[in-house]
Amino acid sequence: MEKVGIIGIGHSKFGRRDDVTVQELAFESFVEATTDAGITQRDIGATLIGASPVYMTQRSISGPITEYLGLNPQPVWLIEAACCSSASALRTAYALISSKMHDIVLVLGVQKMLENETSEILKIMGRTGDVQWEAPYGTTFANYYAMYAQSHMTKYGTTSEQLAKVAVKNHYYGSKNKKAMFQKEITIDRVLESQIIASPLHLFDCCANADGSAALIVASEEKAKQLSDTPVWISGLGASSAPFSLLTRPELSTLTSAVEASKIAYNQAKIEPKDIDVAAVHDCFTIAEIMAYEDLGFTERGKGGEFVEKAYIGGQTPINVDGGLKSKGHPIGATGCSQVVGIVKQLRGESGDYQVDGAETGLTLNVGGHGEYCVVHVLTR
Amino acid sequence: MEKVGIIGIGHSKFGRRDDVTVQELAFESFVEATTDAGITQRDIGATLIGASPVYMTQRSISGPITEYLGLNPQPVWLIEAACCSSASALRTAYALISSKMHDIVLVLGVQKMLENETSEILKIMGRTGDVQWEAPYGTTFANYYAMYAQSHMTKYGTTSEQLAKVAVKNHYYGSKNKKAMFQKEITIDRVLESQIIASPLHLFDCCANADGSAALIVASEEKAKQLSDTPVWISGLGASSAPFSLLTRPELSTLTSAVEASKIAYNQAKIEPKDIDVAAVHDCFTIAEIMAYEDLGFTERGKGGEFVEKAYIGGQTPINVDGGLKSKGHPIGATGCSQVVGIVKQLRGESGDYQVDGAETGLTLNVGGHGEYCVVHVLTR
Repeated sequence: MEKVGIIGIGHSKFGRRDDVTVQELAFESFVEATTDAGITQRDIGATLIGASPVYMTQRSISGPITEYLGLNPQPVWLIEAACCSSASALRTAYALISSKMHDIVLVLGVQKMLENETSEILKIMGRTGDVQWEAPYGTTFANYYAMYAQSHMTKYGTTSEQLAKVAVKNHYYGSKNKKAMFQKEITIDRVLESQIIASPLHLFDCCANADGSAALIVASEEKAKQLSDTPVWISGLGASSAPFSLLTRPELSTLTSAVEASKIAYNQAKIEPKDIDVAAVHDCFTIAEIMAYEDLGFTERGKGGEFVEKAYIGGQTPINVDGGLKSKGHPIGATGCSQVVGIVKQLRGESGDYQVDGAETGLTLNVGGHGEYCVVHVLTR
Repeated sequence: MEKVGIIGIGHSKFGRRDDVTVQELAFESFVEATTDAGITQRDIGATLIGASPVYMTQRSISGPITEYLGLNPQPVWLIEAACCSSASALRTAYALISSKMHDIVLVLGVQKMLENETSEILKIMGRTGDVQWEAPYGTTFANYYAMYAQSHMTKYGTTSEQLAKVAVKNHYYGSKNKKAMFQKEITIDRVLESQIIASPLHLFDCCANADGSAALIVASEEKAKQLSDTPVWISGLGASSAPFSLLTRPELSTLTSAVEASKIAYNQAKIEPKDIDVAAVHDCFTIAEIMAYEDLGFTERGKGGEFVEKAYIGGQTPINVDGGLKSKGHPIGATGCSQVVGIVKQLRGESGDYQVDGAETGLTLNVGGHGEYCVVHVLTR
């Protein structure tokens, strides 16, 4: 397997960002990433934008962003796979580099969601479900994940308290992350007393829509070694799709695409789940993190509800110790890159008061839609 | 350069397709392409959807399409670069294959545009221009290309008759193509008497919004040789971006991105413009084809208006002899694949009464937006 490295990372403040255009939002992470890598625009052979275009007033944002960042005349295109757009873009960057088409690629995840009214956002989100057969019955994202939670509770006895513990953990860590949308700790009671969004999910079981950007400079082995003293290597890449309609899924308490994608990535990296020192998983809802514990093999099927205690720093596998989507916010296109930024910082030992000591191997799980796409990356220092 | 081949092609009927969902529309070209290649779903390692998501009610269409086509659990993601989405997807497929990540990739360009009211489509299209600085002044696509035409006419004396001749040529050939939206010949007078859309462009200088899909099965050299007696090889790939704002372009009578992308592709293929036996260029407006004659080096700068006479079969370089966007219609995401389908048929000698005898080397130019993206492929048999 061709070695490809990440040599630069950047991350904007996530949250309501009415203060910037989408170009300016992209610039924030871009300038951090290029500075970190010690490169300029001229070194970048191609740019991949990870985003879900439907939320933004500006159409086909790759053009305005590359112009604003001074990246013309190099090629650019946008990668969309709902909430795993920018992990899919990183996968594409790996292909562009290992095929020798380019030696340095910028992967830039960016999303402005909050330009729209909340009701408009909900309508757009609802159209991610099957507009012909499911959306008419109200399948927004919260509803899909509520069904997963119902299924997991029924089958395995998972409790609302266990779901709440995921939110408490992620807000605890998010309180330390200056780029997070929410930097306040919460309690189990606060979660359980918050309003029901889609039973059994409370408000604090759900991540928040956000604006944000995150950027990665990805390079060939030769370039990475030449430009960086601390490259982080992509050691395993897995991606998979799953049936889109809930009707055709035999089981709602697992994402088969996450199971499949992680198996491929573990095999490529020649590791097992127990070798992962730190992970970022797609906690768009608290139940998603519990399912991920099982789907990624960190614990047995049905034991996800208990595993949250082992997902703190010092536990078996620290998970979402940058705050996760839950506290960082979830700017759809930026989330996949944000997860990778968090893991790269861990592997470089730069995570300050949420550093996992001696972390050498990390994993990211970025989920698209309600699990119809999953992308897993294993990263090593 | 790694050899990558196209071993299967498919093309739906383009036009107003209220009779099908986006999944069913995708199926039409998919089933043709897989039958042509002699493969089934199980042989496909990954799928790339080329589309511009903002026009379609169904969001994140890769999920529903791959489920409908029976492609789970293989990975899928969507590539967007406005009107050159599916040429960018073919470029990505080349990377996935030459990096050895996959050995067979499906590239499926698909678009349903006509689900919306015309006024809604115009509003969405207008948002391709800079929503902050240009769109407020009315920069729809017709207006951008009208400015290019004004510039070309002023600088080089290009005439409305010459623009009309492009439309006449492309409708002449389109009348022979059963998959085209419009299969009627037109005359120069008919063009010049049609209403002005954006001066100097008449209605018949403009291509039409359409629904449609086109599919390509792309394979490694080994798989291509094993599965096909008539593989068509990707011999040159060029892609480039140009400034998005007209304000920052020094010149409006050329697309610098097309010049740059074609240079790269010619160099890779080790050929010159005169070696191209047949080409498909992005004639979203007649002026775009005239600019392409020059940008691709088929004629000198300023002589594009005269070159249309040499772009018929039997002339110097036959161009858009499947009818072009002008008569086929322009379902944004499908157009890049449609161009490649046309050229592959030429190189296989399967184009019937619009076959260029003995064609061995073809070219496609797919333009995104108002020229901020361009992708060129050189194809050889």
